[in-house]
Amino acid sequence: MSLPSRVQLIDVGPRDGLQNEKQPVPAAVKIELVHRLQAAGLTEIEVTSFVSPKWVPQMADNAEVMGGIQRQAGVRYSVLTPNLQGFEAALKTRPDEIVVFGAASEAFSHKNINCSIAESIERFAPVVQAALAAGIAVRGAMSCTVGCPYEGDVAPERVAYLAGLMKQIGVQRVDVADTIGVGTPLRVQKAIEATLQHFDVDHVCGHFHDTYGQALSNTLAALQMGVRNFQSSVAGLGGCPYAKGATGNVSTEDVVYMLHGMGIATGIDLDKLVDAGAFISDFLGRKPNSNVAKAILNKRAG
Amino acid sequence: MSLPSRVQLIDVGPRDGLQNEKQPVPAAVKIELVHRLQAAGLTEIEVTSFVSPKWVPQMADNAEVMGGIQRQAGVRYSVLTPNLQGFEAALKTRPDEIVVFGAASEAFSHKNINCSIAESIERFAPVVQAALAAGIAVRGAMSCTVGCPYEGDVAPERVAYLAGLMKQIGVQRVDVADTIGVGTPLRVQKAIEATLQHFDVDHVCGHFHDTYGQALSNTLAALQMGVRNFQSSVAGLGGCPYAKGATGNVSTEDVVYMLHGMGIATGIDLDKLVDAGAFISDFLGRKPNSNVAKAILNKRAG
Repeated sequence: MSLPSRVQLIDVGPRDGLQNEKQPVPAAVKIELVHRLQAAGLTEIEVTSFVSPKWVPQMADNAEVMGGIQRQAGVRYSVLTPNLQGFEAALKTRPDEIVVFGAASEAFSHKNINCSIAESIERFAPVVQAALAAGIAVRGAMSCTVGCPYEGDVAPERVAYLAGLMKQIGVQRVDVADTIGVGTPLRVQKAIEATLQHFDVDHVCGHFHDTYGQALSNTLAALQMGVRNFQSSVAGLGGCPYAKGATGNVSTEDVVYMLHGMGIATGIDLDKLVDAGAFISDFLGRKPNSNVAKAILNKRAG
Repeated sequence: MSLPSRVQLIDVGPRDGLQNEKQPVPAAVKIELVHRLQAAGLTEIEVTSFVSPKWVPQMADNAEVMGGIQRQAGVRYSVLTPNLQGFEAALKTRPDEIVVFGAASEAFSHKNINCSIAESIERFAPVVQAALAAGIAVRGAMSCTVGCPYEGDVAPERVAYLAGLMKQIGVQRVDVADTIGVGTPLRVQKAIEATLQHFDVDHVCGHFHDTYGQALSNTLAALQMGVRNFQSSVAGLGGCPYAKGATGNVSTEDVVYMLHGMGIATGIDLDKLVDAGAFISDFLGRKPNSNVAKAILNKRAG
């Protein structure tokens, strides 16, 4: 087993997580969550989304949140930008990275954003161009790289196709997302392998959902391929609103516990991270959706 | 990655699981659970324990349960036997395998069974001898092989020591159990490596708890060492009554899902297994403690 000695985690809780809450979370709470994440040692945080509040009212406070964060040196704050209009609005808030997105499944692309994969990427081209011209990094989120709620299994060739399109328009690094959490280690490795046709391994992030409890074994399988960037969500916030039953971003706590147990550095203080997760979970009136957080909170309760 | 093409699962739910229920479960329900497990394709089932009902009232119906099972050819029914008296009682019920046990942690051994590791194994010697003389297989459950609730980290040397003692008294195969679920892949591999000093890999079973969400990544790490026997508990029944907060046998459903997703055969019908887990969970008045069972039941609910 050849494993990285250090892993970079991107916490997507404030955006991917809180976007899925029925009741919008106040900007002040989101800002506090970001502050707690960076205090815990997170150096990449997906903060918000510049989409129409008509579609995603949960992120209507995007500018307020970005403006309210006391930025910490060395931390990268990223935002989702679905189109040029969103990008222009995002630009004013000085994100370090923007995120564009596409699905490896045609059916998902059509149902989710009402166009083909190729069309979706074409629409993102000017956004990517504008971001790069403004000196802002660009990440591409590739959803449904293993399975699709409408199509079932997704072939690695479709992942390679999407990764190729992302590369063509100038995307600098990509997320290999198992959006509905159906992946298992060998299938996830095939999706990553397909992505490596177009991106260096250091420009690949694993994004695994825990719907079927597979996120950590998939993370281990990806680590064994040399992947060292992963996305996760504090307290396991969020999921996929488009796929019924497909809740379950893997919790950052569970990922950090495994990595530290394997001697892999993350720069994250697990106790402070559990505190951050407890803070937002308390606000939402539920327990953290994280085995590690629950075990540690139980232990603390003595 | 060199992986086995077939894995043998031992469901410990009826014993290790139901032993931890405050309210004893009626014998008829236990028998029905065993019937449903074998109907789902399980070929090894840990049925009950022949311990004093004073200590474990949940298993007081051991003979009734063993007597009530309609046995299926090719299925191995195992029972726990802590001493000769228990073994004599068990013998009348014709188990295929008995289970003796020991801890890799001295502190745990003292707190749990009030004697040293060496003493505990010495006491088991006549039980093992009697079982082998009667043509009954013998398995040794090794607890706390990674961490101990009283001692913290457990060194691989302690695992090797326990495995050696087990081998000496005639135990044929052993479980490497992470009783409190604190293990991560590399540490679990070290515990297995230590065990392999005394047992062939085909005589090693992985038994991982999911307390910190690590059971499946640990399973993957063990598979990669060639281990192909694993214990798990339908619906994630049970845990460890001796370690606070240490609930969490990994669910058989989650393990089966991962294995099948990797193309590894188990002979188990996942849908029927989910039914078996739903049956006992319904009886207990709660949801299965299994990501896969929840996801599949959600999906069925449409």
